[in-house]
Amino acid sequence: MRALVLNQSAGVGTAGRVALRDDYPMPSPRRGESLVRVRLAGICGTDLEMTRGYMGFSGIPGHEFVGEVVSTGTGALAGRRVVGEINAACGDCEACRADMGRHCPKRSVLGILGRDGAFAEYLCLPDQNLIPVPNGISDEAAAFTEPLAAAFEIFEQTSIDPAARVAILGDGRLGAIVALAMKSRGLRPRLGGHHEDKLKRLAEIGIAAEPEHLLKAGFDVVVECTGAAAGLARALELVRPRGKLILKTTVAGSAGVNLAPIVINEIEVLGSRCGRFRPALDALRTGAIDPRPLISGIYPLEEGLAALARASEPSKFKILLKAS
Amino acid sequence: MRALVLNQSAGVGTAGRVALRDDYPMPSPRRGESLVRVRLAGICGTDLEMTRGYMGFSGIPGHEFVGEVVSTGTGALAGRRVVGEINAACGDCEACRADMGRHCPKRSVLGILGRDGAFAEYLCLPDQNLIPVPNGISDEAAAFTEPLAAAFEIFEQTSIDPAARVAILGDGRLGAIVALAMKSRGLRPRLGGHHEDKLKRLAEIGIAAEPEHLLKAGFDVVVECTGAAAGLARALELVRPRGKLILKTTVAGSAGVNLAPIVINEIEVLGSRCGRFRPALDALRTGAIDPRPLISGIYPLEEGLAALARASEPSKFKILLKAS
Repeated sequence: MRALVLNQSAGVGTAGRVALRDDYPMPSPRRGESLVRVRLAGICGTDLEMTRGYMGFSGIPGHEFVGEVVSTGTGALAGRRVVGEINAACGDCEACRADMGRHCPKRSVLGILGRDGAFAEYLCLPDQNLIPVPNGISDEAAAFTEPLAAAFEIFEQTSIDPAARVAILGDGRLGAIVALAMKSRGLRPRLGGHHEDKLKRLAEIGIAAEPEHLLKAGFDVVVECTGAAAGLARALELVRPRGKLILKTTVAGSAGVNLAPIVINEIEVLGSRCGRFRPALDALRTGAIDPRPLISGIYPLEEGLAALARASEPSKFKILLKAS
Repeated sequence: MRALVLNQSAGVGTAGRVALRDDYPMPSPRRGESLVRVRLAGICGTDLEMTRGYMGFSGIPGHEFVGEVVSTGTGALAGRRVVGEINAACGDCEACRADMGRHCPKRSVLGILGRDGAFAEYLCLPDQNLIPVPNGISDEAAAFTEPLAAAFEIFEQTSIDPAARVAILGDGRLGAIVALAMKSRGLRPRLGGHHEDKLKRLAEIGIAAEPEHLLKAGFDVVVECTGAAAGLARALELVRPRGKLILKTTVAGSAGVNLAPIVINEIEVLGSRCGRFRPALDALRTGAIDPRPLISGIYPLEEGLAALARASEPSKFKILLKAS
């Protein structure tokens, strides 16, 4: 099958490490897994980080997708259009028994850890990870289910007062999706960024977006979506004492960031990663959230290298790959 | 009066920056403040960090003390033996109105920020900061009120299940005091350290202390009390996914620490600093906690430089200065 393949031992940078192949072996579903033909896959910041070595992953990246089940042992899934939770858990360990399969230490993660992902014509996932997509949701919107679920995860982890002063740092795809999720829950976040064109676009779709330097200290909640160490430092400046700082990106390195304000100001720092798909699908189904204005381009899989390059441009939001 | 005086512009290291002076001007209480004759003052890791430049403080360090009120406009305090909360707040700002005076942006902090401290014969604090010490509490125990209050602050910020697996990293005075506070609340923390002699001493007073490398990942709660970047990295290894990491030291620098596990494992990181004195005094009064076995030496103020040197030795717990 056709796939974008990441090989960590093959050179440096996206161009050297990622190759388009037409002869990649079809994935074979294991017991309890389904084979899914990918329709659309989204390119996420994590994918781009991985092409620079993050997670040391070799194989097919991609973990945001919508597709259709072409082979399954579960009748209810046969032929269905689905999205899929990306963590495939063992089901048997302490984390799994505590209903924290997304933290199973033995898990594989679609396109990130020990499991080929969605930048391909086909992928496999356990049946229990697959969720049929309601008819009213377009493929383009459904492709946002995973990042939207990650945004809603914030509300699974903590409560935020409706009157809270909330700032989102980062005018990229993640910041934008977090803003949409927060707005759908009645919050009124202010999003700070550095890219005039993106801030303008976000304002057009109703997000209170502004140059980041205009944000002043005193926010009850700050969500770090920049993926940069500087963003972490800035977030620590902006959050009020006893406030909450939510970290949504794994690449927020620590180099040179002074963490003393966490203690001095008694900040609650919450790491936040993947979430359940149900709240995201509900928001898409009801129309509470329409993420499609965030699509900056849809590329056929065979133009995947160009798509990755586009997704790396600071002016772009979400780039989708059309696999089939 | 006699005082240890820190001068950041005078050389490098404790020896160069701290001087014993006999001619330091007596502090003058402002309106609403009392003058306190210091009996005992404790040396804390923060004091030692400050002699290396932390906070840029020049003046008299020291913020753990017990003393007696010698001049006051508040009759109820006259002549009383007191301890004192170290944050002197403005009383008028947003933080103060929200009952967060310890986070008042205009605050001075005894011996740390804009206010001379307790390594002296006398100090001043606002009357509202001073709390009479019940008779049953010895001076030596009362000198631990401030660090004990900081330990109890953890319970003001978060709830910890009595069955929680709790690890404390650091076998210094802070780790020991946190362990005593946690034990008094029915928890059974395991304390990991690197100093055989201190671990032995801690075990003698009933703390489950052991070499740090024996601790294995999977703790529900980890309290970082080492004050070292390596301690933060180790804490991130030890805490389970969705667990709590409580940071009690401001010097846990970030250099080289990979913060990605906070996000990947969705850790809740809580910065925790000063606390209310009441729970600490209650624990000392009832005997729920007796911190006196942690005293490694009591030095007269005129031997303050030697006392600071002793407090810096890894084998020492709490060093007290006897000021008068």
